[in-house]
Amino acid sequence: MLARAENELLTRVGPGTPMGNLLRRFWQPFALASELPGADCDPIRVRVLGEDLVAFRDSHGSIGLLAANCPHRGASLFFGRNEEAGMRCVYHGWKFSVDGTCIDMPNPRSAALHGASEPAESDFRTKVKAVAYPCQERGGVLWAYLGPEAHQPRLPELEWTHVPESHRYVTKRIQACNYLQNVEGEVDSSHVSFLHSKGAAAASAGIKDFRSTLPDYMARDRAPRFFVLPTEYGLAIGARRDAETDSYYWRITQFLMPTYTMIPVPVGQPVSFTGATPIDDYSMMGFTVTWHPSRPLTVDERAQIESWLGVHTEVDARFVPVRNKANDYLVDRALQRSGRSYTGIRGIREEDLAVQESMGEIFDRTGEHLGSSDLAVIAMRRRMLEAVTALAERGEGPYESRNADNYRVRSAALVLPRHVPWTEGAAQALLATV
Amino acid sequence: MLARAENELLTRVGPGTPMGNLLRRFWQPFALASELPGADCDPIRVRVLGEDLVAFRDSHGSIGLLAANCPHRGASLFFGRNEEAGMRCVYHGWKFSVDGTCIDMPNPRSAALHGASEPAESDFRTKVKAVAYPCQERGGVLWAYLGPEAHQPRLPELEWTHVPESHRYVTKRIQACNYLQNVEGEVDSSHVSFLHSKGAAAASAGIKDFRSTLPDYMARDRAPRFFVLPTEYGLAIGARRDAETDSYYWRITQFLMPTYTMIPVPVGQPVSFTGATPIDDYSMMGFTVTWHPSRPLTVDERAQIESWLGVHTEVDARFVPVRNKANDYLVDRALQRSGRSYTGIRGIREEDLAVQESMGEIFDRTGEHLGSSDLAVIAMRRRMLEAVTALAERGEGPYESRNADNYRVRSAALVLPRHVPWTEGAAQALLATV
Amino acid sequence: MLARAENELLTRVGPGTPMGNLLRRFWQPFALASELPGADCDPIRVRVLGEDLVAFRDSHGSIGLLAANCPHRGASLFFGRNEEAGMRCVYHGWKFSVDGTCIDMPNPRSAALHGASEPAESDFRTKVKAVAYPCQERGGVLWAYLGPEAHQPRLPELEWTHVPESHRYVTKRIQACNYLQNVEGEVDSSHVSFLHSKGAAAASAGIKDFRSTLPDYMARDRAPRFFVLPTEYGLAIGARRDAETDSYYWRITQFLMPTYTMIPVPVGQPVSFTGATPIDDYSMMGFTVTWHPSRPLTVDERAQIESWLGVHTEVDARFVPVRNKANDYLVDRALQRSGRSYTGIRGIREEDLAVQESMGEIFDRTGEHLGSSDLAVIAMRRRMLEAVTALAERGEGPYESRNADNYRVRSAALVLPRHVPWTEGAAQALLATV
Repeated sequence: MLARAENELLTRVGPGTPMGNLLRRFWQPFALASELPGADCDPIRVRVLGEDLVAFRDSHGSIGLLAANCPHRGASLFFGRNEEAGMRCVYHGWKFSVDGTCIDMPNPRSAALHGASEPAESDFRTKVKAVAYPCQERGGVLWAYLGPEAHQPRLPELEWTHVPESHRYVTKRIQACNYLQNVEGEVDSSHVSFLHSKGAAAASAGIKDFRSTLPDYMARDRAPRFFVLPTEYGLAIGARRDAETDSYYWRITQFLMPTYTMIPVPVGQPVSFTGATPIDDYSMMGFTVTWHPSRPLTVDERAQIESWLGVHTEVDARFVPVRNKANDYLVDRALQRSGRSYTGIRGIREEDLAVQESMGEIFDRTGEHLGSSDLAVIAMRRRMLEAVTALAERGEGPYESRNADNYRVRSAALVLPRHVPWTEGAAQALLATV
Repeated sequence: MLARAENELLTRVGPGTPMGNLLRRFWQPFALASELPGADCDPIRVRVLGEDLVAFRDSHGSIGLLAANCPHRGASLFFGRNEEAGMRCVYHGWKFSVDGTCIDMPNPRSAALHGASEPAESDFRTKVKAVAYPCQERGGVLWAYLGPEAHQPRLPELEWTHVPESHRYVTKRIQACNYLQNVEGEVDSSHVSFLHSKGAAAASAGIKDFRSTLPDYMARDRAPRFFVLPTEYGLAIGARRDAETDSYYWRITQFLMPTYTMIPVPVGQPVSFTGATPIDDYSMMGFTVTWHPSRPLTVDERAQIESWLGVHTEVDARFVPVRNKANDYLVDRALQRSGRSYTGIRGIREEDLAVQESMGEIFDRTGEHLGSSDLAVIAMRRRMLEAVTALAERGEGPYESRNADNYRVRSAALVLPRHVPWTEGAAQALLATV
Repeated sequence: MLARAENELLTRVGPGTPMGNLLRRFWQPFALASELPGADCDPIRVRVLGEDLVAFRDSHGSIGLLAANCPHRGASLFFGRNEEAGMRCVYHGWKFSVDGTCIDMPNPRSAALHGASEPAESDFRTKVKAVAYPCQERGGVLWAYLGPEAHQPRLPELEWTHVPESHRYVTKRIQACNYLQNVEGEVDSSHVSFLHSKGAAAASAGIKDFRSTLPDYMARDRAPRFFVLPTEYGLAIGARRDAETDSYYWRITQFLMPTYTMIPVPVGQPVSFTGATPIDDYSMMGFTVTWHPSRPLTVDERAQIESWLGVHTEVDARFVPVRNKANDYLVDRALQRSGRSYTGIRGIREEDLAVQESMGEIFDRTGEHLGSSDLAVIAMRRRMLEAVTALAERGEGPYESRNADNYRVRSAALVLPRHVPWTEGAAQALLATV
């Protein structure tokens, strides 16, 4: 249970809020690279951390992310002309480069109110700058840094951002709730034994589930014991279930500051990453990546992803899930009653959406009842609260963002002898190799 | 005219508001019994007095009404598994009985943050309770009590809740305005001579109107004289019109605390009841019942109800009227101009919806001009204000809710000799017999 | 750039606001005459300056504009019976004439609460008055005066309101932004060289553009020199561009208090007027008129208007533009890229809508960067600020509204020898002749 003030502190992300300031010290994934397919392509609207922006790719292919309203008279640059290495506002032709510099201002000249003259255009132009945020393209995703220039870090060295495109599958969805509800779900390994227990995979026409290469230890033991290990990038969360008489089944989830997670899959199988980027306090973008470090994804693996029954979800042209809050995720009560699905909702991600979005736009945590199975959720919140407080009260920027190499990790699920500590037995499996 | 403070006092019904507290001392009809057709059927969303709830019928057929958000982490129980005598949250499998008791909590167990151990699940489980409200099913309607346990009254002994199903017809609608605007309309007998004067019935293809068994005294005399009699359950409102030279036509409307009304119909004909249950400050559920105390409704009477031209209205699957605010109630200006309909709106209920909803979500009563024809409205508000004040300032719960037997009454319309006082002449007709 | 307080002062128009009070000293166009086609026709909903009203034409053809809520119990008069020289509320039959007088109150009569008697209806009726605003019909438009009776001015003597119907074309649109954003665009001649430079006309199938009878001086010289001349009705704004070596091309825009503008067209061609009437702080009605002072509009001129590629825009039955904010004005990026259109948006008005509406519902002017090309915008705001301050602080009503004859002006675009001052050379062209 949180105090109201703590809940506010964790969930409010707009400009000037403590959490908004903390998140602005990290790179935020904000679009798929494919949304800006080429030089001088159509611009797109972007809303991140409560700020309305326009993203475009200039004639050199560089990514620009500018405040939506032109600094002149506020017309949206979304309607601008993306041409000759800049975005030109159609209202009066002011043109901006990707770094926000005004590189052309054709209309003003010496002018007069009853004849009085004014300074030359050039002087005035240099005074004008559009709000622009640095962007990078990596791993098929566009990343933006909305924080203070002096503190701009390197991109986190996530393994999937370094593998060839053939080894990776990236999707984006809009989620209709505060980002924290999604992160809580991702670090919470215990819900898998319930929400996803009969999962969509089982309910679907013979599509293989990642987890099915191991005996279903999660169904056998639905009350895992949790161990939370603080790390330099965030948290490693071990969920221990009984396997055989002499072994444990360990599922190790990675939480990487500020909103990145990797859910466990058996060693050797494609790994999954999810990043939650707040659109504003009430909605977020979810980026989910499945990758294999050392080989291309197989036709079967891609087919499974595109069955939209796993952690990737089917979306419309605006990235709104097809099975969403407005249509109750097309819940099939007969299917739920049949027992072939625990929820009657098709898709592991949609099951997550149903519970996370139904908590409300911003969940009121002052009335919750957390138990031993929520240790990871508690630890993640604590880590976030410590970081937001350190920045707000002592001006200490987050250590994690300054040390990008620490993000070279993976999640894992594996069976270990009971006498072997997970931190040793899984150490190798948790290291990225690319 | 009301002071702004009085208007707020009468119309705000959320948790903690004075009127919210008063209404919570009474049973609230919240759904048709048919919405929960059988044991372990699909749950439904319910919003009453500003609270989001989920209703279900367990394996024994008992009705449960729980706060929508699971007490654990807030996922909506609407997506829950209704099975084996309880509602199980799909997020982590916590299961609740209809009284809110947590009867299963499969996930937590001894756990550890760096090894520290925690209390057993059983201890924790007993600490958790879902917000649950007592429910009863009677008269084809589901009733809930949202008030303090110590003050839970009996269900009001309304006649229609005791007749066989064959004698009764119950419908539900969503109305897009504060509940008080509906109650005001129900107690206001004078508008019938205008709003409903050429009524929908007349405009419709030869469908008989209840009122047509008497000469149309209401058209002849459109300025009735009002008499308001305080009673133990609320108010009896007599509207006197000239009938023949030696007789009066009396229409006696019943107002039963807090939001129940019975509009007059000629003695011997089916009687009509309406109850207004606030969804929140800006919308309400209307329950309308037509019943005959001593015989089944006839095929004609059911056909007339299902013509949806009387006080029962045609609704969609979500109980939203087909002719509603968004489509201007399909007003037919040519029909209105023709004089065959006073409003051009088909349906007595829809005519009421048009005027009541067009007053605004919460009508601002500080600018109204009440006349002698509004005596009943004035008296009803006064009764409500007295009750809300007694509870808020002196902690006196409403007498009416504690005396359920006083609700054994009916409305009536009848002709009496001019020398006979209505309170005597109509006394017998106003008593329920079932 | 404006201070926040100035921006609020200029943009808030509701009852009791300083700007609301100023605008209420002027006549407001609120509907096309054709919206109330004849005596006793259907009433229409009207929202002006944040007030919800109902407009109707009574049996004598007089225009009524009443507060939407009946003064009795607040039912909307939109559902009223428009009959026999008055609007009758359908709830209880109270009837009002166009001046708000209650001319019939059939329901109340002597009545009683336990017998006590009340005053006669007639006395009560005279106490009741509906809020009613004076209306006039002129120039195919309905005008209302929402200000204090004592200060009611004459209608502004605009030329187009005096020409025969055959000489005039009037359209109305709903615009989804604060009125000021539209007025700023209208007085801003400099944006024409950009936003409209390849204009919709050019992009359309060979439809002649008004401006095409002159060489395209605006394309040649896209940085005009501005001269702003205060006048008795508002401002005359001269935009000077180089024409030939010995001549200038002058475009003279008229700004007439409070929200009227005339954009320049070559002398002899049909002139265009636009009036912005605030619906509330966040939306407005735009009335655009094209007229020729001395002859009927030609078939070609009407065809061009109805191509909806100029300043008149295609709207639906509720006057919402077909190409609007919700559909990104059907922007055609390929067309924009082709260079045949500067914006890819079809229609000069739609181009204006795109920039004006994308500034936000109420543009935050505290962050803008105004240059020499914005002199007219600056001067218009200053004129408005002076007027609103004079009324709010010194109780001085606007001079302009009291002097209707000063509105007998026109805009003009013409070529003048360089040695001739525009105020002399254009003087004749700027005078209305009708």
